[in-house]
Amino acid sequence: MQRQRVRVFAPATVSNVGPGFDVLGFALHRPGDWVEAEASDRPGVELLEVTGDGGALPVDARRNAAGVAARRLWRQARGGRPAGLRMRLQKGTPLASGLGSSGASAAAGAMAANQLLECPLPLETLVACAMDGERAACGSAHADNVAPSLAGGIVLIRSYRPLELVQLPVPDGLFVAVVHPHCRVSTGEARARLAGRAFPLPDIVANAGNLAALVAALYRGDLELLGRAIEDRLVEPVRAAMIPAYDAVRRAARDEGALACAVSGSGPSMFAVADAHDAAAAAASAMRRAFRAGASLASDAWVGPISRRGAAPVD
Amino acid sequence: MQRQRVRVFAPATVSNVGPGFDVLGFALHRPGDWVEAEASDRPGVELLEVTGDGGALPVDARRNAAGVAARRLWRQARGGRPAGLRMRLQKGTPLASGLGSSGASAAAGAMAANQLLECPLPLETLVACAMDGERAACGSAHADNVAPSLAGGIVLIRSYRPLELVQLPVPDGLFVAVVHPHCRVSTGEARARLAGRAFPLPDIVANAGNLAALVAALYRGDLELLGRAIEDRLVEPVRAAMIPAYDAVRRAARDEGALACAVSGSGPSMFAVADAHDAAAAAASAMRRAFRAGASLASDAWVGPISRRGAAPVD
Repeated sequence: MQRQRVRVFAPATVSNVGPGFDVLGFALHRPGDWVEAEASDRPGVELLEVTGDGGALPVDARRNAAGVAARRLWRQARGGRPAGLRMRLQKGTPLASGLGSSGASAAAGAMAANQLLECPLPLETLVACAMDGERAACGSAHADNVAPSLAGGIVLIRSYRPLELVQLPVPDGLFVAVVHPHCRVSTGEARARLAGRAFPLPDIVANAGNLAALVAALYRGDLELLGRAIEDRLVEPVRAAMIPAYDAVRRAARDEGALACAVSGSGPSMFAVADAHDAAAAAASAMRRAFRAGASLASDAWVGPISRRGAAPVD
Repeated sequence: MQRQRVRVFAPATVSNVGPGFDVLGFALHRPGDWVEAEASDRPGVELLEVTGDGGALPVDARRNAAGVAARRLWRQARGGRPAGLRMRLQKGTPLASGLGSSGASAAAGAMAANQLLECPLPLETLVACAMDGERAACGSAHADNVAPSLAGGIVLIRSYRPLELVQLPVPDGLFVAVVHPHCRVSTGEARARLAGRAFPLPDIVANAGNLAALVAALYRGDLELLGRAIEDRLVEPVRAAMIPAYDAVRRAARDEGALACAVSGSGPSMFAVADAHDAAAAAASAMRRAFRAGASLASDAWVGPISRRGAAPVD
């Protein structure tokens, strides 16, 4: 159904999920970003306003993740569409947090633009457009944030060229705690630390075993196995060094019964998984205390199941 | 039930399976190795005879894979057992073929010895003992041959320390062609080519996407996805250089409708997967022709489903 105006919510995401660097991510219920879009007689895609970002993001459709994604999608439209599109971005996802902030904006931008087309484009196209938005924001066109933000649930990127996504099952009874300490890690900078690095085979083998077991655990609904499998030997050690109190936070989550705790995306946010809401909430509290005690950092936390719903219109 | 004498068959295996270097393997129905073991009043484990190896393997329980595995298992016995064990190894798996030849011997040795114990040891212990046999034969204690040879089916090694195995589902309708060209690649030499190598992150990411998708494909029974996922960017390119006519063999299998074709273990055997017995058989024939035409090599072939049965007593 073609609309003249739409408001889309796109969820923040946890990417990497331990051993799945650049290939695995899942969607949260909160936080997330909103994009309002309306048809316009003026040709092209305009970004009128960005709120909730403290003025940090460009209000320019050619440089903002949401605008770039919407522009690319708009260009690919087949069939009828309005001459132009005017959009407003409302940030709910903290910037440079490791929670897929630019990914959520890009997903919301692509999805909002798609809602105004007579012939909406398929998910893979939305992901490709949102990856362009991601690249504009952080210099790298990875898909492990935008894909779960658009599709919901847990998404595997089997291949980037060609782009192929595999939706993985979300086990019942799985709860996630996400804690965002009030400091920033730029995704671009975090990725620059990895550029050109080479990794030894024993660590690659250890990661491969965990990643394969993680997927098996999702299909089996085996949360203990999932917990053991969320352990990364390749990228996380590099990123841990950029996150104050990393060790203490991880220990705190596990001491509260979390099945695993790891860096979300490029950090500084960290996430824990648990087999009950109470355990996830207790882990979140313990992780917040550890950021406070170990690094004098205030933090926010979100606790809940993985969201099976991706970017979608809201009222 | 404690026995005085037993004859065990342990299947050959395809390890790595594309992107799963050192973490993934599956069992074949044929070929395989046999170990006959009988209780003896003379203490210790004796290897009396090895047949089917053309005299290439040591007839010494301390150096032969089957003997080493049986000796280690024998030492770990709890509860009653005969004073000693006398065994004979009959090789059905070609040596240095990439089909887990030493792994099958080690699995057969461990399983045969286990049958003579009053309190048989659990699978994980058998795998650990067989890994010792594997190490004696090829210098590396990898588990992706011995684990599926012992357990049957498709086995993932999530972790080596501690050793943790995950049995993966065998999809219905999956058929395998294995072709062994009459040349040899020593596992030790093949592994030496990898020693000390480091691998770039983009190739690691590509492999991770394929390995995770491979596991998902097994659970979904999605053979097309399985075929796309059997593609290794890390180890196989190194090994392909050691296998005459590698490219032609791969192309031949795919031209006959195989879903994928890759190196088995460290080669020179190659395997293909298909969604029907006829297609697997046609791929096997085409692969044999390609070895003949491209490298003047005769070959053997085995075609059939993955064996859900691992090492076990036979009559």
